[in-house]
Amino acid sequence: MKTLYGPIYGYPIHIGRGAFCQLQYLLPQGKHLWVVDSEVARLYAPLLQDKNVYVVPHGEGSKDLSVYQALLAALEKAGLGRQDTVVAVGGGVVGDLVGFAAATYLRGVQLWQVPTTLVAMIDSSLGHKNGLNFGGYKNQIGTFYAPQGILMDLDFLLTLPKEEWRSGRGEMLKYACLLGGDEGRLLLEGEVTEELVALCVEYKNKLVEKDPYDRGERRLLNLGHTFGHAYESLSGMTIPHGVAVAMGLSTLAAHAFRSGTMPIEEYQLLQEALEDLDLPKAPVGALGVALSHDKKSTQGGIDMVVMERMGACRVERLSHEEVLCRYPF
Amino acid sequence: MKTLYGPIYGYPIHIGRGAFCQLQYLLPQGKHLWVVDSEVARLYAPLLQDKNVYVVPHGEGSKDLSVYQALLAALEKAGLGRQDTVVAVGGGVVGDLVGFAAATYLRGVQLWQVPTTLVAMIDSSLGHKNGLNFGGYKNQIGTFYAPQGILMDLDFLLTLPKEEWRSGRGEMLKYACLLGGDEGRLLLEGEVTEELVALCVEYKNKLVEKDPYDRGERRLLNLGHTFGHAYESLSGMTIPHGVAVAMGLSTLAAHAFRSGTMPIEEYQLLQEALEDLDLPKAPVGALGVALSHDKKSTQGGIDMVVMERMGACRVERLSHEEVLCRYPF
Repeated sequence: MKTLYGPIYGYPIHIGRGAFCQLQYLLPQGKHLWVVDSEVARLYAPLLQDKNVYVVPHGEGSKDLSVYQALLAALEKAGLGRQDTVVAVGGGVVGDLVGFAAATYLRGVQLWQVPTTLVAMIDSSLGHKNGLNFGGYKNQIGTFYAPQGILMDLDFLLTLPKEEWRSGRGEMLKYACLLGGDEGRLLLEGEVTEELVALCVEYKNKLVEKDPYDRGERRLLNLGHTFGHAYESLSGMTIPHGVAVAMGLSTLAAHAFRSGTMPIEEYQLLQEALEDLDLPKAPVGALGVALSHDKKSTQGGIDMVVMERMGACRVERLSHEEVLCRYPF
Repeated sequence: MKTLYGPIYGYPIHIGRGAFCQLQYLLPQGKHLWVVDSEVARLYAPLLQDKNVYVVPHGEGSKDLSVYQALLAALEKAGLGRQDTVVAVGGGVVGDLVGFAAATYLRGVQLWQVPTTLVAMIDSSLGHKNGLNFGGYKNQIGTFYAPQGILMDLDFLLTLPKEEWRSGRGEMLKYACLLGGDEGRLLLEGEVTEELVALCVEYKNKLVEKDPYDRGERRLLNLGHTFGHAYESLSGMTIPHGVAVAMGLSTLAAHAFRSGTMPIEEYQLLQEALEDLDLPKAPVGALGVALSHDKKSTQGGIDMVVMERMGACRVERLSHEEVLCRYPF
């Protein structure tokens, strides 16, 4: 088991196979309420049987004020005080919902995150953001609120549905492109180990430390997202987020290769890793959607993360003409 | 007009008669949505006619998730981004509701507070707390979130209902007891001026600076509240909060006088100021309610703020026997 420390507050982040059984020794004293995704509750019932568990319906629909309200009532029923702990066990949805409830109940109770998907481990459980959807928009409500600890048990990944796995690998390839070098190569290879999860966690934590409220450097984490969001939305949200991000990476890499900034061997390795994800064909018209709908797009142009080669990515302001010229499809 | 600066973040706090008309020059650029209590909207319609106004029903019932949800929809309809500003105009209820919405919409938008009651000016608009009631409990949900600025126009107090005025004066007498000395005497006298409001604001701000998350020194601000809450609750919430606090001060002062720690002239001045508030008789059985219901009360005793004399108050752990012996009524 590896232990890293979270940005700003220095809370522990434990990463290891079978680590879940250690959690009871790591939680602070006081009452504990375990808030668990219904799929996790089904698959891991034996691990939860001696605990005070509240089950949240699986799926994006749970990032909603009505589910939040029911969860608040459960916290109240459990008699939780400020020194007591809520433990969120599940993917990004449960993490976001429980994070918001923990941040706002009694103006903040203790929070532990136990991400069970690869996306949640390397992305959504990090960075102190929580969120609910509102009025048809994602994460329209939320706060910044750090947990008291995070525990990532890689054994949960053994039961991950294929789509979730592809999505997580897509996000992992994003880190490969951001990091570059030997570490980037390791991340391309595809085996999900404690070390590789820790690489991603450390990379994101460093950016969060520099930019806690997501106003500057953290935007690098949006690599692949400008096109990714467009692909997601054009597919009617049937393409999983991380897969759409990987499609975005592929678009960026193709430009980097054609303009001669990305060496051929690197491009080939990256393409192979992307092909393993069995990416769907990019839908026609995605570029227009990206330019007209992205939050960072204005009349004057669009802020997007561009990639020269793996390990050389930066935020750049591009005019719409430049985008259309660079990424012509 | 006086300008003070808020704790931790150094945002401006403007205090002055007629200051409201200056606000348009003080707000940051971008969109502004004015969220206004319905009573304020009725009484001050001319001041608001050129503004983008959203009216919230007057009264404690607005500290509710359903009103919060409607307000979020209004923020969305107004197209507010993170750099745009919500201006809360009203008493503590509007301040708490709008503070929570501003803290959570898009994970935080710009917030200006314009408290229109005396309680909101010297207490609830300060200290970065917001809150909604939930499940029958007050302020069960909320966050800590600082505004970008506060503007206190004392002219709003000219239309304050008598009960609200008594409540505000009760809170002001609390500051008199905490401060003591010449400043305490000035606060006893009763005229509400820029200088006296500023005295209270400065006192609270200092405590908030030392104890931003209300875990230690800020508890001094609960002077009079242990008994106050009991009086409030025994009256079926018909006694206004600040009046109940003043009744609590009276109980504490009587003990301080009888035990010889408070000089007679000081006791007389304080009693005169309290009598001006026309305090109701303390309901029988309040002590029992205080000991059994106060959040800081356990089997082992109760943490309460005690007063030796004006300017000499501190948090003390008392056994239930000590409380019954000291405050025998």
